Amino acid sequence: MNRKQLVSKIKEKKSFLCIGLDTDLSKIPSHLLNLDDPVFEFNKQIIDHTKDLCVAYKPNIAFYESMGVKGWESLRKTLNYISNDIFTIADAKRGDIGNTSKMYASAFFEKMNFDSITVNPYMGKDSVTPFLDFENKWAIVLALTSNNGALDFQELKDEGDVAIFEKVLSVSKGWGTDNNLMYVIGATRSEYFTKVRQIIPNHFLLVPGVGFQGGSLEDIAKYAMNDDCGLLVNSSRSIIYAGNDIDYAHKAREQAKKLQIEMRSILEEKGF
Amino acid sequence: MNRKQLVSKIKEKKSFLCIGLDTDLSKIPSHLLNLDDPVFEFNKQIIDHTKDLCVAYKPNIAFYESMGVKGWESLRKTLNYISNDIFTIADAKRGDIGNTSKMYASAFFEKMNFDSITVNPYMGKDSVTPFLDFENKWAIVLALTSNNGALDFQELKDEGDVAIFEKVLSVSKGWGTDNNLMYVIGATRSEYFTKVRQIIPNHFLLVPGVGFQGGSLEDIAKYAMNDDCGLLVNSSRSIIYAGNDIDYAHKAREQAKKLQIEMRSILEEKGF
Repeated sequence: MNRKQLVSKIKEKKSFLCIGLDTDLSKIPSHLLNLDDPVFEFNKQIIDHTKDLCVAYKPNIAFYESMGVKGWESLRKTLNYISNDIFTIADAKRGDIGNTSKMYASAFFEKMNFDSITVNPYMGKDSVTPFLDFENKWAIVLALTSNNGALDFQELKDEGDVAIFEKVLSVSKGWGTDNNLMYVIGATRSEYFTKVRQIIPNHFLLVPGVGFQGGSLEDIAKYAMNDDCGLLVNSSRSIIYAGNDIDYAHKAREQAKKLQIEMRSILEEKGF
Repeated sequence: MNRKQLVSKIKEKKSFLCIGLDTDLSKIPSHLLNLDDPVFEFNKQIIDHTKDLCVAYKPNIAFYESMGVKGWESLRKTLNYISNDIFTIADAKRGDIGNTSKMYASAFFEKMNFDSITVNPYMGKDSVTPFLDFENKWAIVLALTSNNGALDFQELKDEGDVAIFEKVLSVSKGWGTDNNLMYVIGATRSEYFTKVRQIIPNHFLLVPGVGFQGGSLEDIAKYAMNDDCGLLVNSSRSIIYAGNDIDYAHKAREQAKKLQIEMRSILEEKGF
């Protein structure tokens, strides 16, 4: 999916919601557990009940990988089930030397047909650029994450008093364009959004951390929205585990709807 | 495998060689391609012909992941084929928020029974510590990698003139012990080994980059060997792709043997 198509979906659905499919066998309703593929059945119901409210789905790859071959099969079926006009993000946080990143890109973009993948920048340029060689595919580079560990290295200052995550933004933005690069910026630090937008005014940001990880939608929009919206705001557990019974998908829809209504109001206010 | 067992194997085999199983369908001998599982058959022959010369095998997970479900099956069979007294490294460069890293740890340590996994430190403490909760399992944290991209962020200096990779070492060493933490230190930068050993004198280092990526075994040993050897030196492509015909495994053995002879001489010189 290209940028134009993504922006058009945001306007059409009045939503910049991304739903994280962190599907965990130990957390899904027990009535699904006897089915042949409980993880796929869970995802299918979630997708059926939320696909008009969100513009993106983000399977967390670890959850599928931890189930071995069966997990990859559930992931493949889930991805095939998501309609092509919804943006898909492999939340995989990959990154390695060039020939290896190329293999990861092939796995997620060609074998699985994801629109995008999250990428860790620690190994530098040649670990990121192989993800930028695919038409209408995106690398979503980690800059500032929403966990406590972000303080350990991402917020260290360099000799010129510039934080490492800012350095990641200013250096890596030259490796691609705002048509194939997005950034992960954690929502628990809204005071940083202004700084981020000074460095990358046009790029889309994937903002985790609304819901269980904290963060206010209003603040994010206030400091980080741009002329193309420029935001995908993710919520995972607070939507998909809103219920734990036969009506779990309806409960998930209620939660997603709450966020979408808030997003609609923000988008309308900004004239979208 | 614990540290004592690893050190004992190094002394017994007079080797600190790790062989990288970066097995690529487009590079393996054509006579294997008609078999049901060419990747596993290739690995099996390599293992049969080198297992007395090395102390570790390191499958590069990207290469298996790029083949989808079939690749994971080849990986599982390869891992089962490696005898328990050889150290296994999942070169996966994973790392995410705590609950997600826990899933990756479960995938590689429990589902697949690897002894260790390479971990990216960018997301900080809570992304690494879930890998340290398993008895006799190891996290091998990226500090200084051997690719050009290492210059982009790893070698940036902080306010106190300390490079980020040094910061990664000094901060993360407190998260575990030298019995469950190792570090990736790239061999193309032997001038840094002295610096590394000042910060972590006792930890094992996984050194990539001997062979195709450059780097001298003698220099590595001179600057980085400690009383327990403290080194696993990896070679991937220069061993496994030494030949490309029916005798490829013999050619691989020849290359591995060359390195092992050099290692034996270094180890004997140091009194092991």
